[in-house]
Amino acid sequence: MERIGVLTSGGDAPGMNACVRAVVRTALAHGVSALGIRRGYAGMIDGEFELLTSRAVGGIARWGGTILQTARSMEFKTPEGFAQAVENVHRSGVEGLVVIGGDGSLHGARELHKAGIAAVGVPGSIDNDICGTEMSIGVDTASNTILEAIDKIKDTASSHERAFVIEVMGRRSGYLALAAGIGGGAEIVIVPEHPTDMDKILGEMKAAHDRGKPHFIVVVAEGATPTATEIRDAVAAAHSGFDARLTVLGHVQRGGSPTAADRLLATKLGTGAVDALLAGKSGVMVGIRANETVLVDFDEVLVCNRPADADLVRLDEIIRL
Amino acid sequence: MERIGVLTSGGDAPGMNACVRAVVRTALAHGVSALGIRRGYAGMIDGEFELLTSRAVGGIARWGGTILQTARSMEFKTPEGFAQAVENVHRSGVEGLVVIGGDGSLHGARELHKAGIAAVGVPGSIDNDICGTEMSIGVDTASNTILEAIDKIKDTASSHERAFVIEVMGRRSGYLALAAGIGGGAEIVIVPEHPTDMDKILGEMKAAHDRGKPHFIVVVAEGATPTATEIRDAVAAAHSGFDARLTVLGHVQRGGSPTAADRLLATKLGTGAVDALLAGKSGVMVGIRANETVLVDFDEVLVCNRPADADLVRLDEIIRL
Amino acid sequence: MERIGVLTSGGDAPGMNACVRAVVRTALAHGVSALGIRRGYAGMIDGEFELLTSRAVGGIARWGGTILQTARSMEFKTPEGFAQAVENVHRSGVEGLVVIGGDGSLHGARELHKAGIAAVGVPGSIDNDICGTEMSIGVDTASNTILEAIDKIKDTASSHERAFVIEVMGRRSGYLALAAGIGGGAEIVIVPEHPTDMDKILGEMKAAHDRGKPHFIVVVAEGATPTATEIRDAVAAAHSGFDARLTVLGHVQRGGSPTAADRLLATKLGTGAVDALLAGKSGVMVGIRANETVLVDFDEVLVCNRPADADLVRLDEIIRL
Amino acid sequence: MERIGVLTSGGDAPGMNACVRAVVRTALAHGVSALGIRRGYAGMIDGEFELLTSRAVGGIARWGGTILQTARSMEFKTPEGFAQAVENVHRSGVEGLVVIGGDGSLHGARELHKAGIAAVGVPGSIDNDICGTEMSIGVDTASNTILEAIDKIKDTASSHERAFVIEVMGRRSGYLALAAGIGGGAEIVIVPEHPTDMDKILGEMKAAHDRGKPHFIVVVAEGATPTATEIRDAVAAAHSGFDARLTVLGHVQRGGSPTAADRLLATKLGTGAVDALLAGKSGVMVGIRANETVLVDFDEVLVCNRPADADLVRLDEIIRL
Repeated sequence: MERIGVLTSGGDAPGMNACVRAVVRTALAHGVSALGIRRGYAGMIDGEFELLTSRAVGGIARWGGTILQTARSMEFKTPEGFAQAVENVHRSGVEGLVVIGGDGSLHGARELHKAGIAAVGVPGSIDNDICGTEMSIGVDTASNTILEAIDKIKDTASSHERAFVIEVMGRRSGYLALAAGIGGGAEIVIVPEHPTDMDKILGEMKAAHDRGKPHFIVVVAEGATPTATEIRDAVAAAHSGFDARLTVLGHVQRGGSPTAADRLLATKLGTGAVDALLAGKSGVMVGIRANETVLVDFDEVLVCNRPADADLVRLDEIIRL
Repeated sequence: MERIGVLTSGGDAPGMNACVRAVVRTALAHGVSALGIRRGYAGMIDGEFELLTSRAVGGIARWGGTILQTARSMEFKTPEGFAQAVENVHRSGVEGLVVIGGDGSLHGARELHKAGIAAVGVPGSIDNDICGTEMSIGVDTASNTILEAIDKIKDTASSHERAFVIEVMGRRSGYLALAAGIGGGAEIVIVPEHPTDMDKILGEMKAAHDRGKPHFIVVVAEGATPTATEIRDAVAAAHSGFDARLTVLGHVQRGGSPTAADRLLATKLGTGAVDALLAGKSGVMVGIRANETVLVDFDEVLVCNRPADADLVRLDEIIRL
Repeated sequence: MERIGVLTSGGDAPGMNACVRAVVRTALAHGVSALGIRRGYAGMIDGEFELLTSRAVGGIARWGGTILQTARSMEFKTPEGFAQAVENVHRSGVEGLVVIGGDGSLHGARELHKAGIAAVGVPGSIDNDICGTEMSIGVDTASNTILEAIDKIKDTASSHERAFVIEVMGRRSGYLALAAGIGGGAEIVIVPEHPTDMDKILGEMKAAHDRGKPHFIVVVAEGATPTATEIRDAVAAAHSGFDARLTVLGHVQRGGSPTAADRLLATKLGTGAVDALLAGKSGVMVGIRANETVLVDFDEVLVCNRPADADLVRLDEIIRL
Repeated sequence: MERIGVLTSGGDAPGMNACVRAVVRTALAHGVSALGIRRGYAGMIDGEFELLTSRAVGGIARWGGTILQTARSMEFKTPEGFAQAVENVHRSGVEGLVVIGGDGSLHGARELHKAGIAAVGVPGSIDNDICGTEMSIGVDTASNTILEAIDKIKDTASSHERAFVIEVMGRRSGYLALAAGIGGGAEIVIVPEHPTDMDKILGEMKAAHDRGKPHFIVVVAEGATPTATEIRDAVAAAHSGFDARLTVLGHVQRGGSPTAADRLLATKLGTGAVDALLAGKSGVMVGIRANETVLVDFDEVLVCNRPADADLVRLDEIIRL
């Protein structure tokens, strides 16, 4: 293999740049050149390939976002678009591809693999909703961003009889909500995997108020039932003893300089992806298990559905006592 | 004067603890003892006075919130409540009072002053909406919290054709929105002092999109017209070329470890307040002008309405070019 | 088991408070009461035991340091001191002990276990030098503190032909130096496990200068050969083309609000320790492997010597290319 | 005036980029084009001028360092170098110059002004040692960096009988040491303006230990007498009851994303500098007083010596009680 390509795709995640750096420098360490493909599959179709030197990726590990940019491409899902993408890869001389992104991006990588292009995936998704790896790139940074928000709210919370409802990311996964809720000491965490009765939430709030709790913090993943806004409205209407305030963190959670753990994970996975390509692997994602990189077949990654982490659910129940 | 009292009131602001520390230690430096009054005027009525030693305020300067807690008291506005408060102050031996808070709190301090209790105010309000001082306690910390959120959104913004609408505090003042908008490079800032036509906002967004701007950041003070939610909805409906995402920071802005500037300002004002009481002053607020503390009559502070800072409005217009 | 005790010992590490919170609340969840023992083994000898309620540990997870304080106790190593400690534990009604700390602290726990007191250890050490666990409490926070320092130095580094030598913690372990060096993009990392020739360091620096590198960052663990100061002095004397500046982070690395990962790890380990005691275990440390808690015999933990992480050494070599 | 030039010179300071952004966009708002001059006076001699568009300075305000880089130029002080610099400015079409930097840089600007080139200075120096302005660019960010270090040390300090000696920047000015020392609650602050007897320092330390203080934090500006290292050594030798640990922050203090206050100050000063040039001014520095920009003659700026801020010295004495 003489040339590899790397792209970032889907929602961006802090640490993607550290992964790109690792891909490029591991390739160079093996005498393999590296091309960056801009804007994910969209750029693959539009032919936006560029040579990445060692210097080009110097200093990028500390930046949020991705220097390669991402995009969602409808065209890639059409036969014409896909064919164009495949043709461009071949024309560029790229013999192996590293795709950094979430489930949707890995789906695309599987299609390319089936079309005969060696492709290895790297899990990048702040939601931690990808199977086959303990952790995805961006999760750690996003957890810390949420935690800082909860900590700040706690500074002010104790002064008032207030319920704070905090909406965090996680359309189908409660990982971020649980991790930050446990760390931050939320009174209740609502996750997509476990729809919760509004009366139960209000009941716990009332009980907490009666026990003399000065405040009540609810962390709600955006895919949860009920939603953060619904909870805020219900609390406001319910005479729970608490006044209700809403915080919606939104895309703040996707940004920020990646943490040490995210940069290290991204480096391990990026290096592991190039190692895998050079070992002749394709159709696999590089995951992390017990501090070691592992290769997991795309089929295994993409059929599964991560349930809520049972350990975290238990810890959350203990900690909120 | 042998004993002073200190309380924090209204919305809490980072730096209030540094101010309490300064009040107590300046008093002690003059051989005057200090009582803390819990939960603002509510605690004054309920008799929640406690001796504050030098050690009791050691290490508190770095914490957000206020160790004395705050509350809003309806009872204080009744003749009975007020009379009880005055009686409790007299009974406690407090001969001079330092009131840290916003306009509402200073109103209360003026009433106490009129009732014969020596009272000096300190401006504490993250909104920077208090007249007679260049800066209030908490503004600097809140500005930085907002700025970090904008910076993080910018990490991810460049990857997508997205408009980000960020609601920040400021019910009647656009100071925070302008300061953070200028620092963070927002494309447009909407402030309460200048109601803005929705068509103008959408027009600027469209023009930016046509000029090739990859993203568009709108910072909106919570008291502005239109509101952040209205703008988000209008953008979503408008086919402006941008997808619209909302961030509502909420009470995150009230928390956090106070910045160096907030701790220093709070220390200057707290020391200045005790200096003023010991010099026989009452019915005044300690403000900061040109790095010096100044005394401003409550009447002057409370009748005025700070207009939007004309310099900031001009800078915002220049910087967004 | 009706009552457990918990203590923190040795150098403090961010996350110890989250672990104390988890120990107390897990105990309470099982109907077991919890005593905190102040100042580690010193307080055990002096009889500083106090009941920890759920509320007493509310909100502590976000604070650095340890509310139980730590100390190093010479007396505990004497037969008299040890006997007094054992007696106090028995008198307090504590039937199981959770000891949070590094190797020295776990040594003590092993002695107590041998003396018939049920004792379970939890690895707390920012150096990540404890065997039997992938990660210790405090490592993640310290890594981020170092990384932020490197990032800040990089802001200024590119303007000048300067070599920056940064001394970080790690008397016998290069983990922190490697993790932060890889994440931060250091040009060379010097670890205790691999003494390095000064000429090699200067040679790499000279080569980097000749290749046009605007700056050169050396991360040095405090136990490494040569030391940070020696390297700074050698660079200054060597006409390497670089001017040399030294940063010594010192105890800054032990502080700070624990990160999300440290709080979560500490919570898992604390809960796991109580689970182990309640299951009748003693003489073991709770470690983390592949996201699961594992129990490792003290003997296994304390005889070993963690070598430098070979994966990190390889990544460091690749990334610095 | 149809074209202005802007350069950053001397030690870099966070906020310089926000100032460059303001200079460029204010110029453009007036229909004036802007050239950036790389590497300060060195680049002026070497002819490193480049056109700065509005987009070229988009998004730079949040980065530490300076996109224009800085350098110290010996050649500029020679008649030949100076003549070359002047010639290059004329050849570039630059009719007015904005020089951002410290005293040395403003000296250079004064020489250019005398040579007939319209030149306006902007104070950029983390030390806050420039006369004629309340505040310089970078001071606020550096203060916060130091404060965070002190806060982190305090987390761990209370656990041990330790004296922490922290060296901070300030070769001739104690501003940073005082501001951070007051905010962080240092037990003693040693500044260059007031040489301090070692016996006095040790005496206060001993007295603190005898009063039961669990730790003792000494903040020392790098230009102070005695130095941080001397104090650490003296404490170690003195049997003061404290163990002594040293932290040397070094160039960490020059980096970091500029704070809200630094970005706003830099924006005001940058806009003010272009306003001044367009109003026909030269030979002046733009300072800030009472939130307004003021113009101060270079001669006034450069002859003076800022004494230690008497207010801060007093506050420090009160707060450490």
